[in-house]
Amino acid sequence: MPASPFTPGKQSSECAARLGHVTTPHGVFQTPVFMPVGTQATVKGVTPDNLRDIGAEIILANTYHLFIRPGHELIREFDGLHKFMAWDRPILTDSGGFQIFSLRELRELAKITEEGAAFKSHLDGSPLFLSPEDAIMVQEALGSDIMMCLDTCIPYPATRNEAAKATALTARWAGRCRAAQNRETGQLLFGIVQGGMYTDLRRQAIDELQEIGFDGYAMGGLSVGEPKDLMLDITEQTAAMMPRDYPIYLMGVGTPEDLVEGVWRGVDMFDCVMPTRNARNGMLFTSTGKVVIKNAQYRRDQRPVDESCSCYTCRNFSRAYLRHLYMAHEVLAANLNSIHNLHYYVGLLAGIRKAIAEDRFKEFRRDFYANRC
Amino acid sequence: MPASPFTPGKQSSECAARLGHVTTPHGVFQTPVFMPVGTQATVKGVTPDNLRDIGAEIILANTYHLFIRPGHELIREFDGLHKFMAWDRPILTDSGGFQIFSLRELRELAKITEEGAAFKSHLDGSPLFLSPEDAIMVQEALGSDIMMCLDTCIPYPATRNEAAKATALTARWAGRCRAAQNRETGQLLFGIVQGGMYTDLRRQAIDELQEIGFDGYAMGGLSVGEPKDLMLDITEQTAAMMPRDYPIYLMGVGTPEDLVEGVWRGVDMFDCVMPTRNARNGMLFTSTGKVVIKNAQYRRDQRPVDESCSCYTCRNFSRAYLRHLYMAHEVLAANLNSIHNLHYYVGLLAGIRKAIAEDRFKEFRRDFYANRC
Repeated sequence: MPASPFTPGKQSSECAARLGHVTTPHGVFQTPVFMPVGTQATVKGVTPDNLRDIGAEIILANTYHLFIRPGHELIREFDGLHKFMAWDRPILTDSGGFQIFSLRELRELAKITEEGAAFKSHLDGSPLFLSPEDAIMVQEALGSDIMMCLDTCIPYPATRNEAAKATALTARWAGRCRAAQNRETGQLLFGIVQGGMYTDLRRQAIDELQEIGFDGYAMGGLSVGEPKDLMLDITEQTAAMMPRDYPIYLMGVGTPEDLVEGVWRGVDMFDCVMPTRNARNGMLFTSTGKVVIKNAQYRRDQRPVDESCSCYTCRNFSRAYLRHLYMAHEVLAANLNSIHNLHYYVGLLAGIRKAIAEDRFKEFRRDFYANRC
Repeated sequence: MPASPFTPGKQSSECAARLGHVTTPHGVFQTPVFMPVGTQATVKGVTPDNLRDIGAEIILANTYHLFIRPGHELIREFDGLHKFMAWDRPILTDSGGFQIFSLRELRELAKITEEGAAFKSHLDGSPLFLSPEDAIMVQEALGSDIMMCLDTCIPYPATRNEAAKATALTARWAGRCRAAQNRETGQLLFGIVQGGMYTDLRRQAIDELQEIGFDGYAMGGLSVGEPKDLMLDITEQTAAMMPRDYPIYLMGVGTPEDLVEGVWRGVDMFDCVMPTRNARNGMLFTSTGKVVIKNAQYRRDQRPVDESCSCYTCRNFSRAYLRHLYMAHEVLAANLNSIHNLHYYVGLLAGIRKAIAEDRFKEFRRDFYANRC
């Protein structure tokens, strides 16, 4: 087993929640953590300076998108993503597995074989191929701090047989990823636990990945259409089976409620496009629930989006102004809304960490729900 | 004559260029100055913090657009634009005359009578009316530091008779604007010199406006399709006739070259959408000419847009990254390009002021042209 990059901190006495920190080539980040998503080497609508102001300690970028545009060879010439996008803190790169899964599900544009994933570019339809070895090679060119193994995501619903086959293939690919990795770069590599909604397959996946040995372990294939209760059950059961001396990452999840529940169940790391995507659609997260900024009720509203928020947007601008920008299709609407929503997500995790440190996460969770109208 | 808000500084020994400053309710700005355009109560693609970093001392907003959306009464509830858009430095509001002119020229959506301008909203076609008195009332609600009289812009080409009629109407409207103004707000009011390409009409307009007495004088109806040489000739001749103890403002102009030539001919104030509009279209201004960022030649270019530029964009990002953002349709492209172009324009005027202070504007102007490829 590799030495773990994870240093555990305080363990909640109330639930599986815990503090910790992860050490990477570009520094340390605290857990539990939310990672803003920078799909195309930019977190949509914000600058790196905004991200630092917001308190983001690590961001995520996408192997699939950057492989297609501008290409990993170009980013290699910049010695990686950090210099290319002017972000000097840790970066995690998703492997592309989920994007290829989405292509396959939605548009039948991808085909999975033992060798890897054949797919068509979403830009121009040109045929492309990504093997597990390619996924590592691309992520090494990107120079991310945490690389993810190429995986095959399992749709919901899926038969046990389908899930078992995909889980086994993901494990074989994980072995190939680990073998292909250049250990001298210092980049961490996480394995992805698939298994669909079958806990025995999740258990088997964990065993197989641990056998190979990774620097962290992620749960994939959740929030793919299954009921919320089932998602949380699988998260809880899988997290409980995962090696607790390594970081535990729940991929692509989710709502503020999902983050609170994920931490409660032992998850250390999260990412989701929701704060930035919803921001561009005018949906703002607040401590008392959602604000749909285009609603007429905010037309003359001189209050900030969230009166308890300290972000740049809330310190300077009213709901009425944000509504005006949104209705007028101004670029600044996307900027200010994204700053607010990311601040909310990053701040939520900071609040959770403080509550765990004071061993009152149960009270925090109760108040979190009580405050929502 | 009202006391002038303009304090003249050094006069160039080489040309009509001069330094000065203008005192407004929200502070002083140095001249010659470029005013970034914030049509809809936001300078497109940048935050107020960005504008301060860039060094913008005054911005412009549009009466026409804000009258239609969100409405001046809403902005009045915020005690004006400054609080609404979180900008605490001076704001000049255009009167709406040019927008109504554009509606009339392009889509026959406006009709000018002695009483004022009847026009249809560009948003929903609803019929609206703006008299000179309305234009002042709206700008008082907006609380701008400098208000502009409602004017009737003259197309190019126009017959002498057409130009004379419009110039006379603009003068009558100017009198009504001045009479309608509440002098207790401290807001300044500028008159607009029309006259088309007829210098005797420009002379007549200046005389009539001076008779009424304003806090500053603007040249309107330039850069409306006339040849560049003619624009500069009319600017030179008109500026020479204008009262030099008040600020002289050339409306809606122009390219970097136009600014250099305008200052040379005695202009103190400029505004133009070019830096922000071109930024969104991927056209960047530099000390050595234009950069069209989508061009393949920049694909691997690790240099900043302008190696002599100190803006946030040039300090942190390469041409290759900006090209990637532009090709990927990322919001950040508009942000970073707008920051750069506005910094270029504001910085160009700062450089011009320094050159005038050192009485070497002629040398500055020569170098400005020599550096452009």
